Amino acid sequence: MKTGAGRGPAIVLLSGGMDSATTLAIARQRGHSPLYALTISYGQRHEREIRSARALARHFGARSIILDIPLGRIAPSALTRKMISVPHGRSTKEMAAGIPSTYVPARNTVFLSLSLALAESVGARAIYLGVNAIDYSGYPDCRPEYLRAFRRLARLATASGVEGRGTPAIVAPLLHKTKADIVRWGTRLKVPWELTWSCYEGGDRPCGRCDSCILRRKGFLEAGKEVK
Amino acid sequence: MKTGAGRGPAIVLLSGGMDSATTLAIARQRGHSPLYALTISYGQRHEREIRSARALARHFGARSIILDIPLGRIAPSALTRKMISVPHGRSTKEMAAGIPSTYVPARNTVFLSLSLALAESVGARAIYLGVNAIDYSGYPDCRPEYLRAFRRLARLATASGVEGRGTPAIVAPLLHKTKADIVRWGTRLKVPWELTWSCYEGGDRPCGRCDSCILRRKGFLEAGKEVK
Repeated sequence: MKTGAGRGPAIVLLSGGMDSATTLAIARQRGHSPLYALTISYGQRHEREIRSARALARHFGARSIILDIPLGRIAPSALTRKMISVPHGRSTKEMAAGIPSTYVPARNTVFLSLSLALAESVGARAIYLGVNAIDYSGYPDCRPEYLRAFRRLARLATASGVEGRGTPAIVAPLLHKTKADIVRWGTRLKVPWELTWSCYEGGDRPCGRCDSCILRRKGFLEAGKEVK
Repeated sequence: MKTGAGRGPAIVLLSGGMDSATTLAIARQRGHSPLYALTISYGQRHEREIRSARALARHFGARSIILDIPLGRIAPSALTRKMISVPHGRSTKEMAAGIPSTYVPARNTVFLSLSLALAESVGARAIYLGVNAIDYSGYPDCRPEYLRAFRRLARLATASGVEGRGTPAIVAPLLHKTKADIVRWGTRLKVPWELTWSCYEGGDRPCGRCDSCILRRKGFLEAGKEVK
């Protein structure tokens, strides 16, 4: 996976969580311009993270594009259906053991495909995404081999690939980082953590017990930072 | 590319044109059940083909799922923007020479990704699509090597792939067929041609001059059938 893609336009997939916020900060620091922050509203249980994404895009001077994609209609998951419950209180070992109910079928493939469409349109040289293969929740589409296969597909799928103008690099700078690494890196790049949102539940405050809240807390603690 | 995938649920990407209508008829004949006809409304210039898709799904007893995907917002094309004109009166040689303004960036990748999400959810054993590498309009994402790369991606992207339950086959029965072959095959399977819609323009009647109208006419003529 290329980790630097030079200057020029770039797309950043921005969910509003701490990983994608840090990824946006990295793309900004590397001098990409303009930056397009692509946020997919896909029938999440709550719109809280969309608000975070919009605020983060504004903070980093990126153009925010929010697309409504009715993924919840075709891909049931604890993140898109209120009937399916989000698991609580799991250890990171339990998280790594299997694919949880928060898995949204083919989510990253749908998101990367939409990014690819936008990238072709604006001539982006890179698509950044904040996936992570270390402190992750067991999702198949967060693995290095998956990203390599997508990059290969992108070359065959696009006019830019066929005409030899080069397809956008798929850049996942956090792929091999722990949550603590991400906290340290993001803090160095002045990510406004208070604008990010991790919780899978839809309350006014984070539940503190879902996988995402647990990983967030662990990251700050292991980085020796105050939990935010 | 596997051309038979046994019985069981299947997804058919149904645009409402003659190729996807024939593909739906083939999936029905092969005994897949239930059949999900997935139609993507992506900001086409006209909704005429969505009406065709709905009628065709009903005709073949498939469950019609119509998803609104705002692809036109991020991927300008003559098919999604009124400002860009559809080419008229081209020969098939001219069509094969390059990628035309009707190319929608990453369209098949977005469509296949959404099909994959649905396939995971309903346990489909196959995703059928009507792409064609012979009498086609020069689109990169209609080539055999593209479909092979998507199949590879699908294995890595999904819970079913990771857990060894098998990922859906990507089935493109028309890939190596001419338009005339498609007309013959579809006629044999009693495709109601009058319900299909090919024209890229949005009028009440086909324009007769866009690439799609020209290929349709050529297909019927070469098959020795009345043009429909």
